[in-house]
This record gives sequence, structure tokens and C-alpha cells, in this order.
Amino acid sequence: MGLSHFVYPGACHSRFHHALGALHLVTRSIHVLRNKGIEISDEEFEAVCIAILLHDVGHGPFSHTLEKKIVPFHHETISLEIMKRLNQEFDGGLKLAIKIFENSYHRIFFHQLVSSQLDMDRMDYLNRDSFFTGVVEGKVGYDRIISMINVVDDKMVIEEKALYSVEKFFLARIMMYWQVYLHKTAISAEQMLKRVFELVFEKGLEPQFLSKQLFEMLVIFPKEGIEVACSEIIDKFTLLDDHDIWYSLKNLVYSKDKATSFLCNSLLHRNLFRIEFSKEAVNSDLEKQIRQKISHHFKVNEGEAAKLMITGIESNQAYTTAQEEILILKKTGQIIPFSELSENLINTKVMVKHFLCYPRI
Amino acid sequence: MGLSHFVYPGACHSRFHHALGALHLVTRSIHVLRNKGIEISDEEFEAVCIAILLHDVGHGPFSHTLEKKIVPFHHETISLEIMKRLNQEFDGGLKLAIKIFENSYHRIFFHQLVSSQLDMDRMDYLNRDSFFTGVVEGKVGYDRIISMINVVDDKMVIEEKALYSVEKFFLARIMMYWQVYLHKTAISAEQMLKRVFELVFEKGLEPQFLSKQLFEMLVIFPKEGIEVACSEIIDKFTLLDDHDIWYSLKNLVYSKDKATSFLCNSLLHRNLFRIEFSKEAVNSDLEKQIRQKISHHFKVNEGEAAKLMITGIESNQAYTTAQEEILILKKTGQIIPFSELSENLINTKVMVKHFLCYPRI
Amino acid sequence: MGLSHFVYPGACHSRFHHALGALHLVTRSIHVLRNKGIEISDEEFEAVCIAILLHDVGHGPFSHTLEKKIVPFHHETISLEIMKRLNQEFDGGLKLAIKIFENSYHRIFFHQLVSSQLDMDRMDYLNRDSFFTGVVEGKVGYDRIISMINVVDDKMVIEEKALYSVEKFFLARIMMYWQVYLHKTAISAEQMLKRVFELVFEKGLEPQFLSKQLFEMLVIFPKEGIEVACSEIIDKFTLLDDHDIWYSLKNLVYSKDKATSFLCNSLLHRNLFRIEFSKEAVNSDLEKQIRQKISHHFKVNEGEAAKLMITGIESNQAYTTAQEEILILKKTGQIIPFSELSENLINTKVMVKHFLCYPRI
Amino acid sequence: MGLSHFVYPGACHSRFHHALGALHLVTRSIHVLRNKGIEISDEEFEAVCIAILLHDVGHGPFSHTLEKKIVPFHHETISLEIMKRLNQEFDGGLKLAIKIFENSYHRIFFHQLVSSQLDMDRMDYLNRDSFFTGVVEGKVGYDRIISMINVVDDKMVIEEKALYSVEKFFLARIMMYWQVYLHKTAISAEQMLKRVFELVFEKGLEPQFLSKQLFEMLVIFPKEGIEVACSEIIDKFTLLDDHDIWYSLKNLVYSKDKATSFLCNSLLHRNLFRIEFSKEAVNSDLEKQIRQKISHHFKVNEGEAAKLMITGIESNQAYTTAQEEILILKKTGQIIPFSELSENLINTKVMVKHFLCYPRI
Repeated sequence: MGLSHFVYPGACHSRFHHALGALHLVTRSIHVLRNKGIEISDEEFEAVCIAILLHDVGHGPFSHTLEKKIVPFHHETISLEIMKRLNQEFDGGLKLAIKIFENSYHRIFFHQLVSSQLDMDRMDYLNRDSFFTGVVEGKVGYDRIISMINVVDDKMVIEEKALYSVEKFFLARIMMYWQVYLHKTAISAEQMLKRVFELVFEKGLEPQFLSKQLFEMLVIFPKEGIEVACSEIIDKFTLLDDHDIWYSLKNLVYSKDKATSFLCNSLLHRNLFRIEFSKEAVNSDLEKQIRQKISHHFKVNEGEAAKLMITGIESNQAYTTAQEEILILKKTGQIIPFSELSENLINTKVMVKHFLCYPRI
Repeated sequence: MGLSHFVYPGACHSRFHHALGALHLVTRSIHVLRNKGIEISDEEFEAVCIAILLHDVGHGPFSHTLEKKIVPFHHETISLEIMKRLNQEFDGGLKLAIKIFENSYHRIFFHQLVSSQLDMDRMDYLNRDSFFTGVVEGKVGYDRIISMINVVDDKMVIEEKALYSVEKFFLARIMMYWQVYLHKTAISAEQMLKRVFELVFEKGLEPQFLSKQLFEMLVIFPKEGIEVACSEIIDKFTLLDDHDIWYSLKNLVYSKDKATSFLCNSLLHRNLFRIEFSKEAVNSDLEKQIRQKISHHFKVNEGEAAKLMITGIESNQAYTTAQEEILILKKTGQIIPFSELSENLINTKVMVKHFLCYPRI
Repeated sequence: MGLSHFVYPGACHSRFHHALGALHLVTRSIHVLRNKGIEISDEEFEAVCIAILLHDVGHGPFSHTLEKKIVPFHHETISLEIMKRLNQEFDGGLKLAIKIFENSYHRIFFHQLVSSQLDMDRMDYLNRDSFFTGVVEGKVGYDRIISMINVVDDKMVIEEKALYSVEKFFLARIMMYWQVYLHKTAISAEQMLKRVFELVFEKGLEPQFLSKQLFEMLVIFPKEGIEVACSEIIDKFTLLDDHDIWYSLKNLVYSKDKATSFLCNSLLHRNLFRIEFSKEAVNSDLEKQIRQKISHHFKVNEGEAAKLMITGIESNQAYTTAQEEILILKKTGQIIPFSELSENLINTKVMVKHFLCYPRI
Repeated sequence: MGLSHFVYPGACHSRFHHALGALHLVTRSIHVLRNKGIEISDEEFEAVCIAILLHDVGHGPFSHTLEKKIVPFHHETISLEIMKRLNQEFDGGLKLAIKIFENSYHRIFFHQLVSSQLDMDRMDYLNRDSFFTGVVEGKVGYDRIISMINVVDDKMVIEEKALYSVEKFFLARIMMYWQVYLHKTAISAEQMLKRVFELVFEKGLEPQFLSKQLFEMLVIFPKEGIEVACSEIIDKFTLLDDHDIWYSLKNLVYSKDKATSFLCNSLLHRNLFRIEFSKEAVNSDLEKQIRQKISHHFKVNEGEAAKLMITGIESNQAYTTAQEEILILKKTGQIIPFSELSENLINTKVMVKHFLCYPRI
């Protein structure tokens, strides 16, 4: 959950918990499907279990927050690379799991259990994050939804009886989005952390203030125009964990770059930047005004001041679209897209918010 | 919950539980408000507690289902009558509670805690019914909402931070409405029970098949054109409980009226009528066709057959409108109606469903 | 739970809930055992499910409280009789279930799941009663225990890892015993109810104050020296439910027997008798003294007064002994009785308490 | 919880959570006591809140496991030192809190809420650890116990009604002791970690494999015969956190000391040592035999082998004795020590277990 514990101190759960939880939900789903007469071989069962267990294994420290900041690959690319290595180690034992993960297996409902609008990944993390943050609006009745999963022509469908539960699931997602994942204080903290790593490159690496493992990773991070294969960085990458980041933050306080030092100090003492949201892009006059204020307050030039000002955009788009629509199985046997059947209790429109983030001065 | 336990067997909680629960929420609300500096005297505190504790005391057996079927008054009228009696018994001790209940006290937030869009009555029953039915979609994060209650100019307002929680509250209400309160099987059972009591009058009371207490109540139920005051029936009414209804159903199986006997038998053995919903009023041709089918199957004339056929209409209107809008208190101190501030995540339009109910033949 | 709701108002759960819950635990146990390689045929599975589902079906209104007071048979005798009838109705379909219930099936672990020191019956009711009363000390970690069940030579054993969980189970039982099942207020209420039914016989039945179904049952209740078979009373018995008792209590208020009327009134208004516990049997001088006080207060003779005074004895014996000891399966494969392995964290000695119960005058 | 997450992966909660939880329980206790008419000034209330909030602030990384291994003081000594510093910073604002913490305030129930047989510290950590490990046997009904706290002559007493809840509390403590705090696998991990830090000193510090903050702490750790005041090390100490330990373990894998490297590698890959418990001290023949086995397997001399062999003793003594007995307040007003009133359902004798810990070879 990135730095959400700065807002929700209970959010101490780990990716390991999530992997176990998602695995649990997949085994329950398979159990339900077998009871409904869907033929699932033991090999397929094992493969989908491996796929869900490893789906997030490529995440690095602070997951989405530092994604592509310390390693130039998307986490799914790295997950796949790790699976391939394990596949060699286990003499081809992950072959089917990899096909399911890549969605190249013909029975696509296995992939849909791992990754789709209503996959076990989301079902677990929404519930888990809701539980550990205490944001009850994000709770999902997964029991009910899972017992209503079915398969027709190797595609996942949801039985009509669970229609309301699916609507509620969409609301839970929206609620978690605005109340947790995009909570303004959490975004502020995450933007500050990202900025630290941008500055670390900009300034030039200072090995004495970085954990050894992190330094060795960053030093091979590809410069513009130079390509590197995922397989080349994987050994360095898998040595990293959150301790390397925190250890480095504790030491980068002594960085010769003032902005870096200021950001690290602020993060360690939870002096988070002010953050303002707006529907429109941030006005350049306002930006300038704040830059000058920073410059004046810290007695630095405007270039330095700009390092402590972060603008950007957040949206719930990633959460609300992209994937194929959920299919509903009517009692009559008919299969109908969710949107045609829904009473549209939930408004799922995409929302966009611009933000401006700077020290509280 | 009427006959909802026919659908949700866990729904065994009682009105007593609800009264205690709503009282608990009111005491928490008062605690929150006092901590925010709202002056509330001990007398006012006691009065609002009495008001919430007794707000449903006028409900008879099977509450809404038999409302106005065995006694010709709305339950709130009877609640008020009972409060007045208690007020005499306690030498005027309920005077302020009655004013709050009737909404004639000038600090109207007390009445709003007892009865409004976001009152403690609903907050308790939605959560309680959600818990005991297992319909998790109806769960309300009351902790959060209560801690965000405030009072401005003696009116209840909700602080802006709880905006999402209020949205979720509306969805919970809609979800409980369609999945529980208006669940088709529960409606079928309740319509059958109502019909029994219509037939009991139509046929003429058979004292040997009614509980003594119920007979004495029904015999003074006013005929057309004859008025009776609530105070006149209250002594008979308060002797009634669910046992009288079930005892009578067990014995009305021997009624000389075939339809009554059939309905009671069906209810006791949970052979509930088929029920069909439609967006339009039931077609008279269909009605006729079914009446003939019943007539044929049971070898009775069409008049008798009509007794076993029930049509009507259900809507979530009562749940969604009527009361004044929720007011939101912004951080700036401004007060704005909920609808102007909401991102309209929830669609709260009124829906109407017609139904037709008849034996499974 | 008899009249425990007079003490714990939340205790509104029913025998139906318990039957479903115990069934659930049995299916989980079977699932665990099959996963451990124990061969269990589908016929056996179905049979043990039927056995647990019906194990309490012979309980009448207010279960243990009125056991043998309104029908002269133990509830297990009646359960068996009802199973036999169902067996006829279902063409021998309950044959194996009956063998399991009677413990005449050679694979005795099936019977042990239904009835033994660690059966699914107790596992469900301890947890359920703990939950609904709020007495958290009675909570049992059934998940853990069930996952540690095993079978050796067709006998149920518990794997050593669950040793602490079994100790805790014993404490839960003791805690529920003293805090709930033998709570002094609940005993007072139950003794009053029992006394009503003793007086109903003593005085001679008054049909006008009894529910019809109850009257027809009591009138054939065997007098001294006359035998009646369980099969002869079963039709009358199965028509009875709690409504008959409450209905009768409401009307026995008008009984010509003063003591009966007083007891019923007291029960209906929850004016429960004072109850005193002692380690020794009640002193006859004290008894006499109280009898005289009652006689004086109510202006009745000492014979009448004695009707309002109840003495007796309660013990946790039934809960703590009787059945064969739990067997523990060590990692080495050795099987050892629980008592030899336990560190005796819990003191399970039998305790006995005498009581004296009379009106608060 | 030290390294318990190696056994119970859910145990991810932090000392911060515990501090907030214990604070919450103290505020509830004060609320209960004020409602019972005990005079408690706002200054006293604030002071006891500060005392509980800071009672554990002197714990370092891995709390009890590394206590006195990286700093030569007990955590309570350090907590006190930190409170004194804060007291200066806040111009004497923690004066009363410090008196309560040191038990020099005359109203000793405040200290008892923070530290005694039934303090809010234990009440929180037993429940919290039970929840996060899933060991349900450790759950404590704190609601009930807290509502039964009272104060007589400025001493804490528990009202008689909570007698069973106190018995259950003792069992919870025993259960958590054996199932969690002294779980064999957790002890193995913790002993390994302790041994690492013993070897780090033995070998001589290798700064290149330690976090900077840890190195600076260890380098001033007093040698035999040299004293150092707590106030002198506090600045170094408060810079330490778990990240320093993990970072160092990751790097000590490259230590020139083979045993250190082996232990760190084993901890990082969760290859935990085998551990054997016995009632008697470990037999020296057995010790020798295992030392030789290690020596042979790793091809090292017996001195090196001994580094990988850990013996010791664990007992629940610390949990079961030491502090003054709980006092029970009878309805009559009499005050009686718990042990005289208890029915001794729980056996609280001290148990001692010797252990022997070595690589799985």
C-alpha cells in the first residue's frame, strides 16, 4: 500500500498476506466451479494457484509508488521473468501457470480468475485494504460473488443472483479509490518519495548514502538510449526490499543536495507537503507564485525551489475501465453484459484530479 | 422483520434489540455532540433517549406486515398513545420526550436523531438487518458517520469528511430494500398473511380458531362508518404478541373457509405462493387465466379462486424520499444540501414493481 | 436456550440455527478427514449429515427446561422415533443415519462426530451460545480443532498439535456452564416454569387456559402406573411449539389456582424469584422460615406457600464426565488419552450447588 | 513480537499500534471510574495517558529479543530517560506522568493501570497478538473486565462479577505464552538472532557490513569494567530501527566469520535451526555429540561448531508471578485477594523448559 500507513496506521499488511489471500480465494473459486460440474484437472488447478501466488512477485519496494523509478520495467514484466526462472528451476513445472498468466491458455477463465474486472486479486486487496485501513465502505461480499461464479464456453460468467453484489463491488472499488488509494495525504507522501529518487539520479548517485544493494541496482539503471534486458537486472532487483529504501532515506538526509536532504527529513518526520486538488490543470501563475515563495523561504534560487514543487494528475481510470466487461448468466441460460442488465445504481464515470504539492511554509 | 426469516433464517432479532441498539447510537451521538461543544442538558439527553427507546413501541405483531390489519391505526399513532399513558404514570416525566417525538421541540436536531434521512433508527436497523440476514451490502459504517454529526442553529448537519460514508449509506439502503425488505419470497409470505386477515373479517370471526386476545381485539376493530379512538383499543392491543398470530394460524387451518385454511396450511409448511414482478400493472387477461387455473385445480368457483390470487405494487419510494435533505457542513462553515455537493455516485431514483401472487399449481 | 434470554437478551437463536451450524461443522470435518486419506463413502457422508441434522429434532418447547414435563420421554428417544418415521417415509433412506445415531455402526467415529466429548453438537452450541450471549469466554476455536481431527482404527483422535485448543475447549465449557447455562437468574426462571407445569397437573387440567394443542398432549400424559409408547404420543407432540407454552402462560394467569396464576404473572412480567446458592443442602429451618414468610405475606396456608418455594441442585457433572475420554494422536503415531498428556491447565472437577428459590417479598 | 512472524505471518502489527490500543483502554478505564464516582482530575487523566503511551518507547529494534544485546539497558530504563528528555522539552509537562510510571505517585491505581497483573498494557497486547496471530485462545474479554474495574483507597480492585473473566484472562496469558511468545520455532529464530549479535562482538565489529547507525551504537557499547550512562547513548539509540538490523543481516552474510555468515543466511532464508525442549538441563554427552556432528558436517573445529549450538532455558515465570495479587471487591464491600476467592479453574504453576538449538544437518 505504498505509504498509506502515514494516513491509516493500521495498514501494516504485506504483499505476502495478499498473495496468500488471493490464493485462498482462487482455491474457493475452483471448488465452487468443480461443484457446478466444470471439469478442472489437478494440473490446471495447480497452475492457476501458482499464477495467482506469483502474480505480484515482480513488485519491488513500495510497489506502485516506486514502479519504474528504481528499475525500468513494469512489475508484471518482472513477475513473468521470475516465473520463467522458476520454471527452469522446476524443470518446466510452471509452464501452464505462465500460459495462464500471459493469457495464452485457451480456457481463458483461468486467466480471468487471476486478472479481469472481477478477479481474485482485486477481491482480496479491496477487502484486505478495507479491513486494515478501517474504511468499511470498501468491504466486498466475496463469499456471495464467488459462489455465483460460473463458466460457459471456458469464459467466466456471474450468475444473475449476484447482480447487486457486483454493483456493490463497483462502489467498493470507487470508495477505496478516493478514500484510500488516492487519499491526498498518501499521494503527497508518495510524490515526495518519487521526487527523492528523481533527484538522486539528477544529482548523481552518492554511494555513501545509499544501501549497497540499492546502489548496485541504480548504477545499472539504463541511461537514455541504452537498453537493458529485464533478465540482466533481475539478480540485483531481487535483493532489494523496503529496508534498503528506508535505510537510504535515513542516510540521504546527509546528501549534499539540499532538496534531497529536505525531502528525506520531511518524510522521516512525517512533515508531509501540502497538497491541493483541482479539476483543471494547475495555473502557471499560481505555480510561479509558490515557486517564488519557496525560493524566498528557503533562500534558494528558483531552480532549486522547483525541486520542492510537484504537479501531476490522478484519475480512477485505471480502476474503472480497460478490461472486458463482466458477463452475467441469466436463469434462462442467456449471457448478457453487465451494463445491459444493471439498474445502474452506481455511477462509474472516470474522474480526473490535478494536484499541486509543496512544503507547508 | 415480518416474515423475512422464511428467506433469511438468521433474521431472528427482535424489536427489543433494535430499540436498545438505536438507544446506544443516540447516546453515542449525544456524546459526540457534547464533545464538539453543543450544549445539551441532562433533561434533553434523557428525553431523546426515551423518545428513541419508545419510537417503535406501537408496532404490533409482525409490524409493517399486519399494520392496520388487526388494529386501525398507524404504529406511530399507537407509540404516541403509549407514551402519553406512560407520561401520566410517570407524572409528566415524558413530556419533553413526547415533544421531541412529535417534532414540536424547537431544537429540532433531537427529532432528527430519532427520525430523519440519517436518523439512528435507520442506522441501527440497516446494520442490524444486514448482520442477521448476512446481506453484507447493507452494512453501514455508523462509527464514522456518527463522529461526523454536528449541530448548527439547532439543526443536524454532517461534516464534509463523511460525504463518501453518506453516499455508501444510501447504497446500503437501496441494497437492503431490494435484497431484503422487498425480497420476492418475503413479499409472497407477507401478502399471504395479510390475505388471511382480510378473509378472517370477510368470513366473519370464528372465535374457536383465534387466540382469545386476538379475538377480543378483532371484534372491536371498527366497521365501516364507525369510529373508534386509539385510546379505546390500546388495552386490548398491548396484550397481543406474535404468539397470538401463530397460535391462530395453527388453528385457522380448521377454518370453515377453504381459502383461509389453505393459506394457513401453506404458511405453516412454508409452501409459499409463486410471485411474479413486472414493471407494468398486471394484465387483466393474465389475471383471468390464472384465476381459471386455480378454480379448475381446486375445483372451486372463480370467486373462491380470487381469494388465492393477490396483486399489488411495491416501491422503494418510502425509503428514498419524503424527508428533508441531509445538510453538509463544509470546512469553511458553509452549509450545503447533500445533493449539491455529492458526486452522485449512487443513483437513488424511485423504482416501482407490480406483483402477482398465487399458489404453485 | 430455555429462558436465558431473560438474562442475555441477545440469545434469540433457534434450534434450527444450531442444527444447520452443527451440520456445517460435520461437513467440514468430513472434508478434513477425506483430505487426510480416510475413506468415507458418499452414503456414509449423507448418513452422518442426516444424523447431526436430526439429533435434536425430538426437543420440545423450551427444550431441557420442560423435558419430561409435558411429554414423558427423553428428547433423544423422540428424535429416534421421528427418524424412524422419516425412514419409513423415505423407503429406508435413513437406515444408516439411525445406526450412526444409535452408535451401532462399526465405524464409530461417525457417531463420535455427532455425540462425544468433542462432537460437532457442542462445538456448535458453545460457540453459538457464546456469540449470542456475548459471553466471550465460551468462544471455541473450532477451525483449529476440526483441522486436527483424525481417524485411527475407525475411532476419532485429535492430533497432538491441538492439545492447547482442547484445554481451552474445556475451559469454554466450564465458563458457559457457570455464566450461562446455570446462571442464577436463568435457573430461577426455568424453575418457575417447571413449577407451573407441575401445578397444572396437580390442580387438574383447565382446558380453557391451555392452548388446544398443549391440552391434547397433557391429557394423554401417562399417570402413575400407566405406560404409553413414544410412538403413540408423537403426533400430538410434534404439533407443539413455543407459541403453545407462551399462549398458555398468558391465559393461565386466570387459573383458579392462585400459585399458578402468580407464577405465570411473574414470568410474563419478568418478576423472577430470588435464588440463593449454597454448597450444602438447604437447611430445613431456613426452608420453614421462608415458607412462613410466604404464607404470611400472601395470606395463604403453608401448603399453598410451599408451591412458591423451589429447592434443588445443579451441577456441571453432565457437562464434564460420562463420555469416553478424548484420544490424542502423537506425531510418533502413538495414541494416548488426553488426561495423560495434558499439562492440566484446567481444573475440571465436578461442582455441585444447591439452590433455594422464592418470591422477592 | 520479535520474530514471531516467521511462525504467524499475520503478526505484522507494530509497537505504535500497541501504544494506541493501550491508550484507548486507559481512556475507557478512566471513563468507567469517573462514572463510578472516583474523582480524577484532568491533569491526572492526561498524565496516565502519557504514561501508557510512552511506557514502551524505550524498546529498540526487535524489542525483547535484542534487549541488552545492542544497548546495555533494560527498555524501561530507556523509556524513563526518554520521558525525562520530553519533560524538559515540554517545560515539566510530563512530571506527573513520570511519577505514575515510576510508581511514586500516591494514588497507585494510576500506576496499576499502566503496570500490574491486570494492566492495560497486557490487556492490549494479549488481545492484539491473539488477533494478529489467529491464536483465538488468547482473546480477552476486556470490555467486561474494564467495566468491572473500581478503586478503593486509591488501589485498583476488580468487582466480584468479573471473577470468571479474570480466570479466563489468566488462561489467555498461559495460552499465548506457550503457543506464541514461547513457540519453539520463534524461539529458535530469536536465539539465532541473539547469537549473531554475540558473534559480532566476539569477532570484532566489521563496519562495512553494519548499518551506519548500528555501528555507531555498537562501537560505544560498554566493554567489561567500563560504565556508561543511559543518557550518553540515547541519541545513538533513538536513531535505530528494524531496518538497521535487517540491513546489517543482509550484509553480514559476507562477514569473514563463517558462523555469522551462516546464521545470517539461515535467518534470511528462514532455514531455522532445529530446537528441542526438555524438562531437565541438556545432557553434556548429547551436547558433545551434536557439537561433533556440526564440526564434522561443516568441516570446522569444535570451537567453531559451538558457535552454532545454543542452549538455554525458557519459563513462563515472568508472566505468572512477580506483581502484587489482584484484589477482588465483593458486593458486601469486602476486599479479598483473588487467590482466596477463585475456584481455581486455571492452574497457574510456573513451568520451565530447557532447550537445545542447532542446524538441521
